[in-house]
Formats: sequence, C-alpha cells, structure tokens
Amino acid sequence: MEELPKTEELQDFVTELHDKEHANETVFDRALESLDVTELSLLLEALPIEERLIRWQQVPEAIRGSLLVEMRSQAREPILLSMDGAATEQLLQMLDAVSLIDLADQLSEETIEKALGYLDTKQKQWFESSNQYDSNQIGRFVDHNILTLAVNATVKDALRAIKRGQQKTLDHIYVVDRNNVYRGAVRVKDVLCEKSELRMVRGLIDTAIPTIMASSQYLDSIDELEHADVKNLPVIDDDGRLIGRITHPTALWLLRQHYEGLLMAKAGMAESEDLFIPVMKGARNRAVWLGINLLTAFLASWAIGFFENVLSQVVALAVLMPVVASMGGIAGSQTLALIMRGLALGQVTLGNALALCRQELGISMINGVGWAVVIGVVAFYWFSSVEIGFVIAFAVFANIQAAAVSGVYLPLLLTKFGIDPALSGAVLLTTITDVFGFVTFLGLGTLLLI
Amino acid sequence: MEELPKTEELQDFVTELHDKEHANETVFDRALESLDVTELSLLLEALPIEERLIRWQQVPEAIRGSLLVEMRSQAREPILLSMDGAATEQLLQMLDAVSLIDLADQLSEETIEKALGYLDTKQKQWFESSNQYDSNQIGRFVDHNILTLAVNATVKDALRAIKRGQQKTLDHIYVVDRNNVYRGAVRVKDVLCEKSELRMVRGLIDTAIPTIMASSQYLDSIDELEHADVKNLPVIDDDGRLIGRITHPTALWLLRQHYEGLLMAKAGMAESEDLFIPVMKGARNRAVWLGINLLTAFLASWAIGFFENVLSQVVALAVLMPVVASMGGIAGSQTLALIMRGLALGQVTLGNALALCRQELGISMINGVGWAVVIGVVAFYWFSSVEIGFVIAFAVFANIQAAAVSGVYLPLLLTKFGIDPALSGAVLLTTITDVFGFVTFLGLGTLLLI
Repeated sequence: MEELPKTEELQDFVTELHDKEHANETVFDRALESLDVTELSLLLEALPIEERLIRWQQVPEAIRGSLLVEMRSQAREPILLSMDGAATEQLLQMLDAVSLIDLADQLSEETIEKALGYLDTKQKQWFESSNQYDSNQIGRFVDHNILTLAVNATVKDALRAIKRGQQKTLDHIYVVDRNNVYRGAVRVKDVLCEKSELRMVRGLIDTAIPTIMASSQYLDSIDELEHADVKNLPVIDDDGRLIGRITHPTALWLLRQHYEGLLMAKAGMAESEDLFIPVMKGARNRAVWLGINLLTAFLASWAIGFFENVLSQVVALAVLMPVVASMGGIAGSQTLALIMRGLALGQVTLGNALALCRQELGISMINGVGWAVVIGVVAFYWFSSVEIGFVIAFAVFANIQAAAVSGVYLPLLLTKFGIDPALSGAVLLTTITDVFGFVTFLGLGTLLLI
Repeated sequence: MEELPKTEELQDFVTELHDKEHANETVFDRALESLDVTELSLLLEALPIEERLIRWQQVPEAIRGSLLVEMRSQAREPILLSMDGAATEQLLQMLDAVSLIDLADQLSEETIEKALGYLDTKQKQWFESSNQYDSNQIGRFVDHNILTLAVNATVKDALRAIKRGQQKTLDHIYVVDRNNVYRGAVRVKDVLCEKSELRMVRGLIDTAIPTIMASSQYLDSIDELEHADVKNLPVIDDDGRLIGRITHPTALWLLRQHYEGLLMAKAGMAESEDLFIPVMKGARNRAVWLGINLLTAFLASWAIGFFENVLSQVVALAVLMPVVASMGGIAGSQTLALIMRGLALGQVTLGNALALCRQELGISMINGVGWAVVIGVVAFYWFSSVEIGFVIAFAVFANIQAAAVSGVYLPLLLTKFGIDPALSGAVLLTTITDVFGFVTFLGLGTLLLI
C-alpha cells in the first residue's frame, strides 16, 4: 500500500519537475520508478513540450510504446515528430495490433506499412479488422486476448488450452466453426468443474451470454456489458465471425473518454487537446469556437442596434441589459441540462416533449415571477422609476419563459436534424435568450419610456 | 439478439405511453415484458408523476425493490410517499443491505429500523458497515458477494466452498483470520488447478492483488481498479478487516454518476434531479443558482453604471457591449475546461501554473489580436468611426488576455480554498470577464470618445 494517494504523488512530481532550481534528471528517474504507465503519461503531458522531449529521452525503450499509446493524441504528436528514423524503427518493432490502431491516425501510410511488417499474420489480421471501424464503434476497441476452440473440441482439449494459455483474466472459452463464425461461450469454471474429459465443450455453452456487433456504437455496448452478468462479452462482425471481446477496463476507459469529450466539447475543444500545446496550434484549435460565438454576439448586438433611440434617452436600459440576458441564459441552461441528460438516456422523445414543456413552463412561471419582482424592485430603487422597474421585470419574466420552451424543443429539433446538441445546444440557446431578451426589454422600453 | 437498440426501444415506449389516445395498460405490460430493470426505471422516470404512480401499480411486487433502487432518488420519492403501510411493509421485506443503503436517506429512522428487522445478522452487519461511509467513499458501494476462507483452510475446503457457492462471478477467494482481518486473495483458477487437495490455501495467495481502503474517495478506487489486472479488488476498513469487494460494474456505475453529476452541476442542479418533478420543488431546486447568477449580473450592471455618461453620448457602445463580454467569456471557458481537466487528473499544480499561464497568454495573444482586428473593422464600418473600432478592438483584446490569466489561476485558487471549481468556476470566471470587459470598454470609451 502506498502512503500517498496516486494523484497526490503525481501532483508532487509535476511540481518538482517545474522547480527550475532543483529539477534534474534524478527527479524524473524517481518518477519512472514509482509511477505506472498511465501516471507517467499524465506526467509527461503536464510538462511543456520542450521539457517533455528532454524527459522522453530518459524513458526506457521497453515502455515507450505503451507510454505513447496512453498519451492523448495531441500530446504525443511532438514526441512522434521528434523521433528520427532509428527511434521510429525501434518503436515500431514494439507495437502490437492494438497499439498500432491507436496510433494509426498520426502515422504516415508508409510508417504503418512498415509497422505491419513487424506483426505476425494474426496481429496483422487484428489490425485490419479493427481498422474497419471508426472511433465511435466498439469494433475498434476489441480485445483479442481470447481463447477459441473448434466446435468438435473436448473438455480435455479445453483444459490443455487453458493451462497453455497466458491469459490472466480468462472467463470464457469461445467456440467457433472452421470459418471462425461464433457458436457460443463456455465458462472456464464449467470446464474446470466438468468430470468427463471426453465431453464435447459445445455441450457446455452458456446461451445466456449475449454477443455484441462490432459495428455498434460503443456507448450502447458499454450499457450491454454493464448489465450482463459476465465480465466481458464476445464481439462479432456482420458475418457472425468472432473478432474478439469487449472488457470492463476498456468500457471504463471509453466511458471516461466519452464524458471528458462532452465536458471539453462545451468549450468547443477536443478531448485530445494537449495541456501544453504549440501556441500557434492551440490558437487555431480555439479560433473556430470563438468565431462561431462572435457571430452570435453580433446577432445580439444587431438586435440591440434597432433600439439606439431608446438607449440614448434612457441609459438605465443599457446598464440593466446584462441582467435580462443572463437570467434567461441561466434558466435555459438548467432546462437544457435536464433535457440533454434525458435525451442521452432515451427518456426524452417528441412524445413527452409537450408534457416536459408544460412542467418547465410551470417551474419558470414561479421562478420568473419571483425573480422578476426582486429585479423590478431593485431597478425601481436604483433608478427611481416605476416604469424601468416594470420594464425589466416583465422582460426577465418573458425571457425565462422563452428559455424554458427553447430548452425543451431546441435539443429535440437539433437531434431531429442530426446535429449533436451537446456541441451547439448551449450556444444556440443563449443566442435565442439574448436576442429575445434584448428585443423584449428594449422594445417594451421604447413603448413605455419615450 | 434484439432488433432494436436498447435506447430506441425505450424511446418508443416513452412515446407510446404519452400517446393519450392509444396509451393503456397493455403498452406498459409490454414494456414490463421486454425491458430490463434499468430501462424500466428510466421509463418510469420519463412519465409525469401522476402517470408514474398509476403505472407503478402495474409493476409486479417481485421487482419493485430493485426498480426503486435503480431510480434516481428524486424520481422515486413520489412513489415512496404514495405507499401505504402495507405496501411499505411488503417492500421492506424484499430489501437487502445494499438496497437499503441506497434508499436509506429517503426513509424515516423508524422505517429503517423496521427494514433492519427483516435482515439476517450478516445483512444487518453489512448495512451498518456501509452506512459508516458517505457517498464519496468507496466503502458505501461495497459488494458483499464474496467467498472467504479461514487462514488454515485447505484446497479441499476451498473446492467445496466454490462448488457450494452461488457466486456467478467468482475470481478470488479471500483469506481472513478469525477477526476477519484480511490476509490475502487466492485466484479461483489457482485453486481449481492445484493438484494437492491438502495444500493450505494461504500458500496460493497472490500478493500482487492490491487492497482498497473503504474510506478512499471512490474516484481514486476506480482508478486503482482500472489499472489492476483483476476484475475486482478487496475492500478493507481502517482496522484491516475485510468488508467486501469493489467490482467493475459498480465502477462503471459510479463513474457515470460522477460525470452526470458534473454535467448537471454546471447548471447548478443535482444529478438526482427528476425529469418530471413537482413544479414547486423544481422551482426551489433551481432558484438558488438563478439567485447567485443574479448577483453576478448585478455586479456587471453596477460596473456599467459608472459609465452612464459615455453610454448616453455614444450609444454604439451599448450596442457593442455583448461582443466584449461574450468573447472574454468564451476564451475564459476554453482555458478553464483545459485546466479543470488537468486538475482532476492531477496534472495541474501551482508548480506548472506559471508555465500554463504563459502558454495561455501566448494563445490569447494570437486569437486576441486576430479577433480584435476583425471586430474593430466590423465596428468601424458599422458605426463609421475609427475611435469606436479602436476602443472595441482594444477591449476585446484585453478581455481575452484577462480571461486566459483567470482561467488558469481562478480554479487553482478555488481549489486551494477548498471550493470545488466544477460548481462555481464558470460563474465566477464570466463575472470577472464581464466586469473587466465592461470597465475596459466603457472606460476607454470615456477617455477617447467624449
């Protein structure tokens, strides 16, 4: 048992390696000794690129392959680029099919060809098979570390195979026909407990174990695995051929990737974004999102532009504008969060949208009235004007109602048109509440105040 | 194999049950037949509360307990409240220790006492043991479905125990002394392969299997499990006594809860928030966040209030205000997303904060100059004024720089003061960029335009 929780130990190394006065090779040597590959990958990512390249030279060749695979794609890119021919050659010799799949997008066709040259026939097949699927499909993340037996194998054959096998975590033996078509799974425990060594293994097949199609979305497969009573499930291709299994550690890793991706997507960034990144590249990665946002901000400005007249006469309206926009934005984001979660789980459809909209409007009615009164009173005292108090109270109330309706229907509409609301939902929603809020607020102001 | 992916099937039932003309008991009966407990819980949550209570009556008593446990705490509350004495009694008889732990927060002391009365000594002990830990500690989520043997047990004893045991997923036998202090784990496979039945089981202990402290944060334990080579890890209390194991399905479930919680927290809501909720309760749940947000919005208004003079003279400034605020907010949220991810992984410390700040300022410099020029030119053409173009360009540039610095240091400072930046980070950051942006923009406007 360790004295420090893992993260704290990692944090300490991050800090020590940034301490210019004391940082030297021995600090990283200590890290190499006491951190595992995942933590080492996190540590390397936590170093500015120059420093990362220097420390990389200290990494023993034996773990370089697995370390690169663990790193985020953008974080390992400078390392891959820094390697000369000999170092690349050395690395390629250590990659298996699974690692190669992970690195494939960042290697040239030529380099991949070279790497494939080092693989045996089986590994090459695995690579080709995984490479058919994209990164949303479970087929890309299959574990090939399985034990298969022919349909006519006996328990004796199975026992021999189990003892010969190197698999640390073996639960099932998969039975396949001569074309590698999946016939069923047999629990290792049942084989070990079977008295008659001459019995056919296929007689022990557990029909309760489901199979997963390699072309399935990985989130669906994780659900399936989570609710199956076993720890890994066989994955088959469209022709019913067994291509491997999906394991729980893979599921955990994929789930984490998925959610980290969602969280980063909310800021318009990729999950693979490196913590330290060449400044030019970082700027490019973020520019698009800033640009999209600028368009929506100009849209809001354009809406305000229609009301220059009232703004120049009643400057209090300009002062209070952020309150209208922000109350609508927050109320909308609350409804959106609820609906997005329901959409992801399959709980929200056009079928219950109306019922949800009714509820959200109910909630908005209460909060809308409540906060509108508070805001109206504050504005009344601040600017000594009943009209201004009334105008902002009404605008805040109306904007919170608009936020509720758009919070329910916007993500549903986006989904219907095939657009992922996780990416664009929040931006579009605040654009709606900004524009609606400003127009209501300044429009009513024009009517009542001048 | 099913024809429909799980989520689609669920979506269809949600829609059908909301179709007022055709919805009737048979639709829900079909759902009861073809959905598993998790999906049923999602389906019930997707119904308005009245409808949910009606359908609940159709649920067979045998699955009521597990169905309630699967549901979100706020979603099952109306069901719990609707139960009369007899129904509650019936339910309590079906709960085991793990289910009771899950429901405990929503049951009265009295009801829990009653439920404990139905448990045997072992289950009661499990309940007491889990109940010592809070919902961030792994001890609360321990699986008690383990096989233990005494230190002096032989392989023969172990074989008998394995065959008698009902565990579907048995990887290890845990060896404990007479005080239930953990001594080690033995792989079932090793027991089954052992030739000598008289050998002591403790001789087969696999010392590579780590243990988890029940008081650990569950996220740390999930990390540990993910990187262990086994599918579940023993959990011990502070005195070294074995209290159970942590399994991969639990880890998946906890990880999902964690991230769903993070996503909901960004809108100031709880993960347990019900999709359909009594309107009054929903309004109360969301009011706090709206109130906090209102304070920050008033802070921005207050800052604007100092510049009424320039606003009344140069109305273009009022029109352009949203652009300044929103560019700063978006740039800040990008830096924040990156830093928050690094903080969660232990990659960001005060040690590398300066290096990160330097990088973020570099990125902001490029995007700041680029977008400032674009915005300045647009404003120049829009309002035919070089001064206005310059004022907004400078304000946007400065605000993007401020966003970079606050995006790095704000979450670190919050963490240092023990405040979770996942909850408050974004709100505080946009408050900073709003106020800083408005003051720079309007301040410079005052200097140059009047």
